[in-house]
Amino acid sequence: MRVATLRTSDGCRAARIDGDRAILLQFADVRDLLERPDWLTQAKAGGPDVALETVAFAPLVPRPDKFFCVGFNYLAHIAELKMEPPAYPSLFAKFARALIGARDPIAMPHASEQVAWEVELGVVIGRSVRAADRATARAAIAGYTIVNDVSVRDWQMRTRQALQGKTWERTTPLGPVLVTPDEVDDAVDLRIQTLIDGAIVQDSTTADMQFSPADLISYISTFVTLDPGDIISTGSPSGVGLSRTPPRWLRSGETLTTRIAGIGELVNRCVDEDAWAPATSKAP
Amino acid sequence: MRVATLRTSDGCRAARIDGDRAILLQFADVRDLLERPDWLTQAKAGGPDVALETVAFAPLVPRPDKFFCVGFNYLAHIAELKMEPPAYPSLFAKFARALIGARDPIAMPHASEQVAWEVELGVVIGRSVRAADRATARAAIAGYTIVNDVSVRDWQMRTRQALQGKTWERTTPLGPVLVTPDEVDDAVDLRIQTLIDGAIVQDSTTADMQFSPADLISYISTFVTLDPGDIISTGSPSGVGLSRTPPRWLRSGETLTTRIAGIGELVNRCVDEDAWAPATSKAP
Repeated sequence: MRVATLRTSDGCRAARIDGDRAILLQFADVRDLLERPDWLTQAKAGGPDVALETVAFAPLVPRPDKFFCVGFNYLAHIAELKMEPPAYPSLFAKFARALIGARDPIAMPHASEQVAWEVELGVVIGRSVRAADRATARAAIAGYTIVNDVSVRDWQMRTRQALQGKTWERTTPLGPVLVTPDEVDDAVDLRIQTLIDGAIVQDSTTADMQFSPADLISYISTFVTLDPGDIISTGSPSGVGLSRTPPRWLRSGETLTTRIAGIGELVNRCVDEDAWAPATSKAP
Repeated sequence: MRVATLRTSDGCRAARIDGDRAILLQFADVRDLLERPDWLTQAKAGGPDVALETVAFAPLVPRPDKFFCVGFNYLAHIAELKMEPPAYPSLFAKFARALIGARDPIAMPHASEQVAWEVELGVVIGRSVRAADRATARAAIAGYTIVNDVSVRDWQMRTRQALQGKTWERTTPLGPVLVTPDEVDDAVDLRIQTLIDGAIVQDSTTADMQFSPADLISYISTFVTLDPGDIISTGSPSGVGLSRTPPRWLRSGETLTTRIAGIGELVNRCVDEDAWAPATSKAP
């Protein structure tokens, strides 16, 4: 099963994606859908059927209650930063205003020359859990999606706390779809890539993660309840621009493609923040 | 003008506080009120009038879109940590599930022996602002409130990112009221205190802040739009438990009182997390 949040002429709507068709559901977005305990049944309902190419993707969850990001979770990335694998997950937040849809442009800030890419597997929570053991944590996963945790690195590095480099308005693509765990073998070994103008800059597998999605849910739920529609972005593999010689940053005009095999891809052009406009529906 | 979010027999309601009376308004909470451009007029409306002592305070904003915390902002606190004043504000997040009302108990986690207090002036945003200069930032302040950024210090220190020590469920009192800037001389020099079982452990003035509320709004709005009901908790003065010899932590059974002159006080008993229950309305 695949679901998405689409922009329609009538506002956002959750939809089931079947091949190149989108079946519009009676829910405002994927979070609204996931808040129903029987969401898997609800998502199978019939509804108006439109060609997927005529609609635009909104952020998969436009307004999550919580968005957790994980730092330093891929062993090869930890090695490229010349660090030891950490004992605990490194966690920081992102707010909803940072999120964009799968084909929206990225708003490139005037205030930075160091905008960086970070492909990440996104875990979408499907039920409320607190103090979850591994089995409960696994059962709380509604599905997987793609995040590019686009980072404004100079601001991120101004202090020890990453937040101010991680939650720039309209910079983080999230989507295009949620894919249920059965369709991607629980995402334990998916190829994960970033491309800039078609050239691969990150290329790894989710098998390189230190803390698995279930590990992370179990850990985070020790201190706070995770709720339907919450996102955990599980960290980025090696190949970040800061580790290159010389460092490499995103520039306006470049196209960032973010892929995870079995889920799909995000395609986001970098544009001056003043020129930002969302992808729109081509439907009548 | 003072407004609050109260728990009534009918769910949460925004209210205007006049002395010992609460006048219930037609809004679900203070964020819902602040989202009206004419909120100052709306808050002057008539409505059912109840004795303040019969109702319970919910968190002032039960579900802010964004909650920013600031680290290292009081010069004496920076000195007690043997640091230099930072060039930029240190920012991290807190999620809504951490928030409790002004008289609710604090849920003391089984998983920590190092729960700490941090009185802070809370700034409540009253209108959406991006890239605000100082004057625009000042005009975006709906009012001031009190936060105790209760911190689970051992978890906070597990990694460089503070978040996992800062967003434990039901640990952060927020309230009791929003006081408009005119009533507290723009909060530039307010006495600010924490007491444990009546003994003062923090005692300072908001005049010791390095970055003022307008500085912080201007800085944060460089990277993200601040919206009505958003909270900026502006950092804690000296007197934190970690800086004591030996360190001093909160224990179940103790009562934490958090005061800012001209605003009011939070009074929160520390209870085992399994025994947590909110303060409830005594109204019929």
